[in-house]
Amino acid sequence: MSGEFFASRWVQRPSHVEVADAGGAALPAGFRAGGAAAGLKYEGALDVGLLVCDAENAVSAACFTRSGVLAAPVVVTQRARLDALRVVAANSGTANAATGGPGLDAAIAMQAAAGAAAGVPADQVAVASTGVIGVLLDAELVAAGLARAAQALRADGGVELAEAIMTTDAFPKRVSLQVTLASGTVRLSAQAKGAGMIEPAFATMLCFVQTDAALRPETAELLLSVCVQRSFDRISVDGQLSTNDTAILMCSGSSGVRVEPETEDELRFGEALDALLRMLAIMIVRDGEGARRIGRIVVRGGDGETVERCARAVANSPLVKTALHGADPNWGRIAQAIGATLRDSAPLALDISIEGILVCSGGAAVAHDADALSAAVAGVEVEYEVGLGLDPAHPAETELFFSDLSHEYVTINAEYTT
Amino acid sequence: MSGEFFASRWVQRPSHVEVADAGGAALPAGFRAGGAAAGLKYEGALDVGLLVCDAENAVSAACFTRSGVLAAPVVVTQRARLDALRVVAANSGTANAATGGPGLDAAIAMQAAAGAAAGVPADQVAVASTGVIGVLLDAELVAAGLARAAQALRADGGVELAEAIMTTDAFPKRVSLQVTLASGTVRLSAQAKGAGMIEPAFATMLCFVQTDAALRPETAELLLSVCVQRSFDRISVDGQLSTNDTAILMCSGSSGVRVEPETEDELRFGEALDALLRMLAIMIVRDGEGARRIGRIVVRGGDGETVERCARAVANSPLVKTALHGADPNWGRIAQAIGATLRDSAPLALDISIEGILVCSGGAAVAHDADALSAAVAGVEVEYEVGLGLDPAHPAETELFFSDLSHEYVTINAEYTT
Repeated sequence: MSGEFFASRWVQRPSHVEVADAGGAALPAGFRAGGAAAGLKYEGALDVGLLVCDAENAVSAACFTRSGVLAAPVVVTQRARLDALRVVAANSGTANAATGGPGLDAAIAMQAAAGAAAGVPADQVAVASTGVIGVLLDAELVAAGLARAAQALRADGGVELAEAIMTTDAFPKRVSLQVTLASGTVRLSAQAKGAGMIEPAFATMLCFVQTDAALRPETAELLLSVCVQRSFDRISVDGQLSTNDTAILMCSGSSGVRVEPETEDELRFGEALDALLRMLAIMIVRDGEGARRIGRIVVRGGDGETVERCARAVANSPLVKTALHGADPNWGRIAQAIGATLRDSAPLALDISIEGILVCSGGAAVAHDADALSAAVAGVEVEYEVGLGLDPAHPAETELFFSDLSHEYVTINAEYTT
Repeated sequence: MSGEFFASRWVQRPSHVEVADAGGAALPAGFRAGGAAAGLKYEGALDVGLLVCDAENAVSAACFTRSGVLAAPVVVTQRARLDALRVVAANSGTANAATGGPGLDAAIAMQAAAGAAAGVPADQVAVASTGVIGVLLDAELVAAGLARAAQALRADGGVELAEAIMTTDAFPKRVSLQVTLASGTVRLSAQAKGAGMIEPAFATMLCFVQTDAALRPETAELLLSVCVQRSFDRISVDGQLSTNDTAILMCSGSSGVRVEPETEDELRFGEALDALLRMLAIMIVRDGEGARRIGRIVVRGGDGETVERCARAVANSPLVKTALHGADPNWGRIAQAIGATLRDSAPLALDISIEGILVCSGGAAVAHDADALSAAVAGVEVEYEVGLGLDPAHPAETELFFSDLSHEYVTINAEYTT
C-alpha cells in the first residue's frame, strides 16, 4: 500500500491530523527503536525488534487476545506493569504458543534480557511473539539479538521495528502522524503486523503505538480500548482468533503537552488515535494473506448480539469471500450465510444492497441493473448492507471489514510450516 | 470415487449388507425413476429428476434444513404428507430460494405438475431444488421436463435421477444395497448430491433413499432422524448451511418384508441405513468442491455442547483446512482454533494427536517422530484427536468429517455465477 496513509474511503483523516512521515521511521520524542537479525526467521531477516521509552514516568495501556490458548509472551506481559510499560521486545519466527513451562521460561528470559539491554526494570517490559505455534522460542538467540538491537536504537527506528515483526505480511504497516491539539502539537506513531490468523477480539496480532503526549493511565486505557473496539475488533481475514494478539499504547509525555480527561484535547487526540487504528486495521485486511479486495459488511435491523453474529457469518463465509475475490455479485450467498446463522427463524424479510444497489427486498430477489452491479463489485473496496427486518425496537447496527479468499491464501497456508 | 462403495476406513460394511449395484441404477421393487433435460442448467444436461413409488400405501419420512432462509421447495414440501410421500420431483440449475411469492408459486406448480405426470395426489409429492440462490424457477420449463421424465420412468432409473441433481459435484453419489434380514431380503438404494455450501443440520443438500421393505411411519421417522444425525449432521465442506437441504426416505413395502419396531430386523435395517448414509456423507466430503483429502476430527473431554463447538471450529478453520490440503502437520492451528472457541479459558490442557501420534500434551508441544507424522498426513484420510482436558464428569465425544481447502475451491466459487 503506497502513497497517502489514509487510503480508504472508510477512514476520514481528521482535519487536525497530518501525516508527518508516511514511511513511519520517525518516532515521537522520548522513543527509540531498533531491530536485529537473530536467526529466528530466515537467514539475515530482521526478526527481533526493541522499542524503548526513555521517559521514566511513561504511561501505557495494553489489550490482549482472549484465546483459551494464550501464548507465553501474552501470559508474561499480562503480569507486568501494564500502565507503566517502557519497553517492548518483539520477535517473529515463532509464536512461542503451546510451548508449556519451557515456553514461559523463554518468554521470562526474553523479558529480562530486554530490560537489561535497555536499562529498564523487567516488570516494565512487554514481550510479543509471532510465527509458528508450538515452536519453542530460543531464549539465547533472542537475548543475543536484543543486545544487538539495543546497540542500534535510533529515534527514527520505526522501520526496523515494523520489519522485525513481519511474517506473511506483504507490506509493513507503520506511520508517524502529527496531531494539533489546543495545548500544542504532539506526535503519534505506530507499527502493526498481521495478514493471517486474523479475527481479533480486543487486539490485533501485534500493534505498537507511541506518542509524546502526556496521558493519565486511565485516559490511555480508555482511549486504547475504545479505539481497538472500533478498529481491530471490526476486522477479519480468516475468522481465526490468534493466540498472540497484543496492542500497546505508550506515552512518553516528552512533548510537554498534557491530554487531560474530559477536554477538547482528549476528544481530538482520541479522534487521531481512532483514525490511526482504523486505517491500520483496514491495512491488515488489505494485506490479508493473498487478498485482492476488501469488503465492508454493515448489518442492521436486529439487536446488538444478532447483528454481530450475522456480520461475522457473512465476513467469514468462504462463499462470500470467494465471490468478493471473483468480483461476483452473488448476493444469494449473503442470504444463505444470514439464514444459516438465524436458524429456525424462517421466513426472514432480508433487505440486501451491494454498493447501494438493492438486490433483495423483504426476502425476495428484486430486479436491478446487472451491469451496474457488476461494475460496482469490481473495485478494490466493496460495501454490502443487510437489513435483517427483525425487531425494529432494536436498531443496532454494526460493521465488519474482511478480506477476499484467493488462490494465494491457499498457497500461503498450505505451504507455511513445511 | 470408484470401486467398492464402502471405500472409507471410517465406515464398516455390516456383514448382512452387500452392494447389489455399485452403479446405483437398480431401484428397489415398487420404485421407478427418470430424468430429463429441461433447459434449467446448461444445454442438454439432465436437470429434472422424477422418482415415483407405485405402492399406494407407501410410507416415508423427511428431514430439512433449519436455515432462516428456507427455499420455496422446502416450504412447499413441509406442507405435504411427509409420512406418505410417493413422488420426489427435483431440479438443478436454480435453488428457487429467496424468490418470494413467485418462487412459492413456481414450487407449487412444480409439485402439481409432478403429481399429474405420475398420477399421484399433489400432497404426496415432494419437490427439491439445487443451484443458484435468488434465481426464480421457470415453472413452465420444469413442468415440460417432468412430463418427459415421466415418460422415461424405469426401474433402473437411479442413474438419471442422481445425474439430474448434480451441480458442482465431480461424481454422482448413488448405490443399491441388498440387506439380509431375518424376515427376508430387502433392497436399499439412494441418490445424493452435494459438494459446496455443505454443513447440514438435520439433512444434507439432497438425498433420496428408497427401500422395498415395509416400515411403519414412526419407524421410518426414527431411523431416518437417528441415521441423519450420525451422517449428514457430522460433515462440513465449507461450514455453510444451505437453504435447500432435504433428505427423504421412502418405503414401498413391495418386498413383503415387514420391519417391525423393537425387533432384530429393525436393528439390522437401521445398521444398513446407517452405513449407507455415513458412506454417502463421506462421499459428499470427499467430493467437497476442489477437495483432495478428508479429515476426521474427534473431540472429547468436555460437555456435549463444548465438544460440538470445538469440532466445528477445527473442521471449518481455513488454516486447518489448508494445512490438510498441503499435507502439513501444523497442529498449532488446531490449538489456535480450539483456543479461539473457548475464549477466556486459558490455560487449556489440550492433548492433540494426529493419526495416533501425540504432538501436544497438557497444552504443550511434545517431542515426536516428525518423519512418521509427515508420512501420516500425506494420505487421503487424516484423523485428528483432541482432548480438551475440561470437566472429566462430562465424557462427551463427537466426530466431524471435513474437506480440505484447495485452489480449486477458490476457482469454483470465484467463478460460479458469472
